Amino acid sequence: MATRWGICSAGKISHDFTVALRTLAPENHKIVAVAARDLKHAEEFAKKHNIPRVYGSYDELAKDPDIDVVYIGTIHPYHLATGKLFMKSKKNVLIEKPLAMNLREVQELISAAQDNSVFLMEAIWTRFFPVTVELRRLLEQGEVGDVQMVRADLGAPLTHIPRLAERKLGGGALLDLGIYCLQFIFTVFNGERPESIQATGHCIDTGVDGTAVLVLKFSGNRLAICTCSITMMLTCDAVITGTKGTIKIPDHMWCPTSLEVNGKEMQFPLPEASMPLNFTNSTGLRYEAEEVRQCLLKGLKESPGMPWAHSSLIAEVLDEARRQLGVTYEQDNIQ
Amino acid sequence: MATRWGICSAGKISHDFTVALRTLAPENHKIVAVAARDLKHAEEFAKKHNIPRVYGSYDELAKDPDIDVVYIGTIHPYHLATGKLFMKSKKNVLIEKPLAMNLREVQELISAAQDNSVFLMEAIWTRFFPVTVELRRLLEQGEVGDVQMVRADLGAPLTHIPRLAERKLGGGALLDLGIYCLQFIFTVFNGERPESIQATGHCIDTGVDGTAVLVLKFSGNRLAICTCSITMMLTCDAVITGTKGTIKIPDHMWCPTSLEVNGKEMQFPLPEASMPLNFTNSTGLRYEAEEVRQCLLKGLKESPGMPWAHSSLIAEVLDEARRQLGVTYEQDNIQ
Repeated sequence: MATRWGICSAGKISHDFTVALRTLAPENHKIVAVAARDLKHAEEFAKKHNIPRVYGSYDELAKDPDIDVVYIGTIHPYHLATGKLFMKSKKNVLIEKPLAMNLREVQELISAAQDNSVFLMEAIWTRFFPVTVELRRLLEQGEVGDVQMVRADLGAPLTHIPRLAERKLGGGALLDLGIYCLQFIFTVFNGERPESIQATGHCIDTGVDGTAVLVLKFSGNRLAICTCSITMMLTCDAVITGTKGTIKIPDHMWCPTSLEVNGKEMQFPLPEASMPLNFTNSTGLRYEAEEVRQCLLKGLKESPGMPWAHSSLIAEVLDEARRQLGVTYEQDNIQ
Repeated sequence: MATRWGICSAGKISHDFTVALRTLAPENHKIVAVAARDLKHAEEFAKKHNIPRVYGSYDELAKDPDIDVVYIGTIHPYHLATGKLFMKSKKNVLIEKPLAMNLREVQELISAAQDNSVFLMEAIWTRFFPVTVELRRLLEQGEVGDVQMVRADLGAPLTHIPRLAERKLGGGALLDLGIYCLQFIFTVFNGERPESIQATGHCIDTGVDGTAVLVLKFSGNRLAICTCSITMMLTCDAVITGTKGTIKIPDHMWCPTSLEVNGKEMQFPLPEASMPLNFTNSTGLRYEAEEVRQCLLKGLKESPGMPWAHSSLIAEVLDEARRQLGVTYEQDNIQ
């Protein structure tokens, strides 16, 4: 039986997610409805993507009885409210990263999932790429020995994009890009809590972090460096140093298609898109969609590949880094 | 007229330096004498390298009237004493990096150079490589715009080497390898003092730093990351991010033979060695030797390419990083 998807918000990432869903078998993934606050926008989206049902409000989508799971592609500050809305209507949800604005909100979403007994996953698509599956396998079999250091960099000059630059829209390098570096680090270190976090960086005029360098220290003298920026181009790669070798994820580490193990490169190409995409390698969003399906088929409420504990840990580190850099959002002041 | 060199200590780096000197025109560089505390060791060295005068003590070398400049290739803790010895005898000196164990010692050496009116340079050979000359030119002409970030990594598993692991011998990643990253950062940022320094890392059993990550913040929101280790293999490369592009120094950043400007690679090959070398790319030591000659011909007491202020600044940052990591040497306790 097909997993029946609802798409919440008709923006750029929802477009790409929908295109990615269509690279999967239609008997497994069915797009039932799309909702946007602007009905016209939703109608255009539905027409372009051939989606049968269209709603001009998220409430209507929440009430649709024929939806198994809602993909929430709104901007960060709306994740909490929309996530709770759908979960209260007993919908499973896949919420774009970052799951929410801070740890408090993340915990509220997790509670909502528990209270309503629904599936909740932060849409960290990277986690389900074939490169990541292979990476986990290599680490588990000790291909590079014991990991001693992880470095992950992601940045580009993006301050002209309002949702990345404006504080009210949840802007800042950490929440949008740093999260990719952190999720990578926690993939390698298996969700272990760091012993210490040191953040250095700077804010742009709007008060959000333009660039942040986080140095995390883990037990057993293991280290990780996360560098993210919306003010400068970074190398957008990642390196894992182990006692027996090195694994590199070349640019683009957030949606990787290749992996270098001790200098030997392996390629993991993505399927072609049926229409133009807004972002790099977006057909790779298919893997998280299939992960959701597999979890639902198994009756799971969280994904083993992106468990709630990882979302909480990432939010906790992001909160601490923002605290050190002096970046606050409205959402931080609510008790 | 040839610059007349004396070689202080007959160890591995002195061997490589001597081989490198021999790649330069003999009418410009003449190796007059070698001294080691063990006369037999000095004699073997002199025989191998065809050096006319041999001394079984540094004192004798200091008294030799036919020496213009002494290359000091002893281990770190002896740099201060040997440097002062030769400078008091009015010898110019090229002292291996790190110039000394801490800022206090560096300042003592600089004072000795001033008091005796001799030339003193820290042997940061990287500074005079053709790659570095080209790098400076590119930065000066704004090839990558305004520099926003510098990252430099250098590390390898080296704790089996006593001089790198033992505290009494001046061991630790920062003094031997981190200094290459820092000198690179200060090449790019022109000797500017960072606004803040955050060090994270760990010590090995001997009490010296095994791995250190330094995040430096400079004026105008510019950042630098220095990662060094004697416990793990790092990428040994460096990246400069500017508003208009990126410059990469691939492995080996400490003795580089290539440079990538916005993905375009340039090669700067080194001359062949006449006999086997102990370290990587050691014929590149010729460039610092020629720099010394040029400075002496001009009557300079310090090199514009590696001025005393840079040696002091590097020592200051190393001191602060060691303070944060809890690494102290005997030399730190002398007032």
